[in-house]
Amino acid sequence: MKVSIVGAYNTKFGSFVKRDRETGTVEDQKSFYELLIEAGAGAIADAGLEAKDIDAIWVGACSPSLFLNQEHVGPLALEIDPEGLLFKPTTRTEGACATSSLAIYNAAYAVASGRFKNVLALGVEKMSLLDTPGVTHALACCSYWPTEGAGGMTFPGLFAELGTAYQEKHNISDDQLRTMLAHVSALNYKNGIQNPLAHFGPGSLPDRNQLVTAEAILNLPDSGKGSNPMIAPPLRLHDCSLITDGAAAVVLTSSENAKVGFKHAVELSGVGHVTERMMLKERQGRLHELQATQHAVNLACTEAGVVVGDLDFAEVHDCFTINELLCAEAIGLSLPGQAGYDMMAGKFNPEGDCPINLSGGLKAKGHPVGATGASMHALAYKQLTGAPIGIAAKGSPEVAMTVNIGGSGVTNCVSVLRRIQ
Amino acid sequence: MKVSIVGAYNTKFGSFVKRDRETGTVEDQKSFYELLIEAGAGAIADAGLEAKDIDAIWVGACSPSLFLNQEHVGPLALEIDPEGLLFKPTTRTEGACATSSLAIYNAAYAVASGRFKNVLALGVEKMSLLDTPGVTHALACCSYWPTEGAGGMTFPGLFAELGTAYQEKHNISDDQLRTMLAHVSALNYKNGIQNPLAHFGPGSLPDRNQLVTAEAILNLPDSGKGSNPMIAPPLRLHDCSLITDGAAAVVLTSSENAKVGFKHAVELSGVGHVTERMMLKERQGRLHELQATQHAVNLACTEAGVVVGDLDFAEVHDCFTINELLCAEAIGLSLPGQAGYDMMAGKFNPEGDCPINLSGGLKAKGHPVGATGASMHALAYKQLTGAPIGIAAKGSPEVAMTVNIGGSGVTNCVSVLRRIQ
Repeated sequence: MKVSIVGAYNTKFGSFVKRDRETGTVEDQKSFYELLIEAGAGAIADAGLEAKDIDAIWVGACSPSLFLNQEHVGPLALEIDPEGLLFKPTTRTEGACATSSLAIYNAAYAVASGRFKNVLALGVEKMSLLDTPGVTHALACCSYWPTEGAGGMTFPGLFAELGTAYQEKHNISDDQLRTMLAHVSALNYKNGIQNPLAHFGPGSLPDRNQLVTAEAILNLPDSGKGSNPMIAPPLRLHDCSLITDGAAAVVLTSSENAKVGFKHAVELSGVGHVTERMMLKERQGRLHELQATQHAVNLACTEAGVVVGDLDFAEVHDCFTINELLCAEAIGLSLPGQAGYDMMAGKFNPEGDCPINLSGGLKAKGHPVGATGASMHALAYKQLTGAPIGIAAKGSPEVAMTVNIGGSGVTNCVSVLRRIQ
Repeated sequence: MKVSIVGAYNTKFGSFVKRDRETGTVEDQKSFYELLIEAGAGAIADAGLEAKDIDAIWVGACSPSLFLNQEHVGPLALEIDPEGLLFKPTTRTEGACATSSLAIYNAAYAVASGRFKNVLALGVEKMSLLDTPGVTHALACCSYWPTEGAGGMTFPGLFAELGTAYQEKHNISDDQLRTMLAHVSALNYKNGIQNPLAHFGPGSLPDRNQLVTAEAILNLPDSGKGSNPMIAPPLRLHDCSLITDGAAAVVLTSSENAKVGFKHAVELSGVGHVTERMMLKERQGRLHELQATQHAVNLACTEAGVVVGDLDFAEVHDCFTINELLCAEAIGLSLPGQAGYDMMAGKFNPEGDCPINLSGGLKAKGHPVGATGASMHALAYKQLTGAPIGIAAKGSPEVAMTVNIGGSGVTNCVSVLRRIQ
């Protein structure tokens, strides 16, 4: 039995805290709890349903215990509508930055089993209550702690290893890679600045409007105010995604039910869910490509009966700019080693055959880790049903792909989404 | 489509650390990673399968980030057999102390959807690396943090509120309740001492052999060595479950497949998964009973087509002794307000019609929070397939119930298990 998305909602992404630099106090201006409720209620309303019509709920959140001392976040979804949702089953999923794709997949399997009719799958993360070292620690817990996190390895460092391996494999110089990655950032900034929900959205910061070309990014100084310092070679500040608060949700039902009871439906036509070994040291010799992601792409495309040429757009996991290039190659949009050149040639721009990250991606839209997968699905749903948020895909898009990745290429979730109504 | 358990494994439960009281150092004698691998490999072998036969894995862990700086624990399951499991999908679930029942339920729905044939669902927790205040904080994150955990409320305090409400509703004096709860502890200790996998198992501590009668527990002093001090009135030390390390796992497949391809099969004949509102303040007036648990029992029994009289034994969630009484009433084994009297009369002893916690329960077997649900299912499977670990249920048991509860009666997971082969 196939399952479809019939409603979606994405909150504004941003850093919803007020920090007093003198006292060190942090005022929460939009809480984890508020984000979760807004996204859930929004998706239910978008589907034209009431809370009582929802039979079960999956909540993805990556590390709410470290971010705000809250585990057991599934039951919090009852607060979307305590009367309508009382006693409904809730499950939390976690899979690092692929957390809420797992919520969607588990929700979809449960619908496909026939146990539930309409279900809600959401993702939420509130990251900004912690300072940068705190966030870095929380995220490092998504690596293999004994030999990676505990050894001081952070995610910029892990993805830097992928970057270096990519350079070596394809004989790309530091300068060449820097230029390629600047093109990735620039494209995401340029797209994001038109997405009203993006963290770096329209009017977010006046001088960010300058960063919509690779040239502008390459001209930034290495240090000082407004600089682009090296974080973990070859990755610089503007290669890293954002520390963001946000939530997103989708309502799922069987495709059969979707066709008779809902205005719009986007089918989860293919799912590829593939796990890679976590420790980078176990993957030596294959760090220059996302093998597991590629396998997930193949599974999703085979199930959906599509080829890469059928994709009208893709939302991919640019937690670091290098990963956007690796995703483009894993999807098959670029040949191995060619994604950077294709990016520089404008292949993935909005006017291309398969634009990437029309939303601005994790780099500009923001990356509230537990919400990212749900956000990819929610915004793709909106694009496919004629209500794009931000830049519209050209024509009348019908098929899209989301590539959501947890950890250093470890939890790979690839969806092929097809408008069926 | 119905789903069955066809293999199970439970590690030894205990506190697998060595603490140097002088230096404060803690040596990990059996790690989270080792426990997870042992349980997973054990269940696969018990089912007569090889790792390559497993199509997907669910890992339940409640708070590994707070206990040992590790999130993203799903992919760690690949380490059970990196060759056989590479690229298989993995999902982590979390629902406080019901974490691994959620792993089992989501795994079962995925099998029922037809997407996977044989799957592994496991639960694991390593709690003992932290000291008691650290564990108390981690668990308090499973309450509603803004008004409960952050206000200094701990789980003993939350369950104490249930105990007080129960006393008031049923006009039970402090002394009467103390006697009832001592009977609960004594029964669990008496059962657990015969369970070789229990934290307080055979020979665990010589003087614990003394605590197998309510009288012995009631005679303990209020303070000093070997005492039974008040923790949160009316709950004392011996009313609280243990800080435990452990893991358990089951292999699931469709009942149809189970009947042709496996030696033993225990069907997950009925599932009741019901969420209650998290904040106790929202449940005033109904704290004296587990309404949501009762609803879950009804759902599970209806789906399985059984009544309470059909149950041959039950494993219930005695995170605190008061909750064992509330569970007995939620199941319908006792009338409201009568479970304490029934307990004192020996109704739930091994020789009764429906013995409770033959394993020793959370009080004596131990309560590695993320592993508890899987352990209940694993040990029930062993009982029902003629290979009991510890005390054997009398006769040839066919139907059992597990009642696994996350938080203060919030995430309620009730399974009716029936031997079909």
